[in-house]
Amino acid sequence: MAYNVMSATCPSRVVLHRIGARWTVFVVNALAEGPMRFSDLRTRIQGITPKVLTETLRSMEADGLLTRTAYAENPPRVEYDLTELGLSLLGPLRAVREWAEAHVPEILAARDRS
Amino acid sequence: MAYNVMSATCPSRVVLHRIGARWTVFVVNALAEGPMRFSDLRTRIQGITPKVLTETLRSMEADGLLTRTAYAENPPRVEYDLTELGLSLLGPLRAVREWAEAHVPEILAARDRS
Repeated sequence: MAYNVMSATCPSRVVLHRIGARWTVFVVNALAEGPMRFSDLRTRIQGITPKVLTETLRSMEADGLLTRTAYAENPPRVEYDLTELGLSLLGPLRAVREWAEAHVPEILAARDRS
Repeated sequence: MAYNVMSATCPSRVVLHRIGARWTVFVVNALAEGPMRFSDLRTRIQGITPKVLTETLRSMEADGLLTRTAYAENPPRVEYDLTELGLSLLGPLRAVREWAEAHVPEILAARDRS
C-alpha cells in the first residue's frame, strides 16, 4: 500500500501531524546529543513549560520515537533517549531547523512589508 | 548574528513554528506542482476547511512564502504561487513528508503496544 499525506484518510497524515507537533523538533534536536533527564531537557529547550514537555515526551514515547528509562537509584534517575526510529527523524527535522535559522531575515522583511 | 531555535527569544523560533504550522507543508507540496486557484488547493489538500485554508494562505503570504495574484478577468481569477523563498522550503518539507509516509507501520505498531 502506498501512503499519501494529501489524502484525508491516509494514516501517514496522522504521523505527519504528530512529528510536526510544535515541540517534537526541539526534543529530537536536544536528544541528538545523547540521553537526558527531564531537567536537562528543560534547560536545553528554552521556554518550554514542564506540562508541555511532559505531554510531548509522552506522545513521542507512545509513537516509539523515544524511550523513558527509570534507574533504581537513590534518588531515582529517569532518562529519555531517542530510539532508532527517533534518530531517523533527525535528518529531516534538522533540514527544517536549518532552513528556519537561515531564512530569518527574509521572513522578517516580508512581514514588515505586509 | 547566529540564529538558534533552542533559544527562547531567537526570532528563528518564530519562523520554525510558522513553517511547522499544521497545514503549511500541505500547501507547499500542492503548489510545488504550479500556481493554483483556491478551489484547486481545496481539492488537492483533502480535508482542509475553507476557513483554515484561507488563514494558512494569508500567513504564508505575510511570511513571503507565496504570492496571491488577482487577474482582471470575468469572472475574476485569483491564483496562488510559491515565491523563491517558498520553493526553497520544498526540499526540507519533502524530507519530512517522505519520512511520515515511510514510517507509518512502525508508528502504528508502537501505538498499539503503548
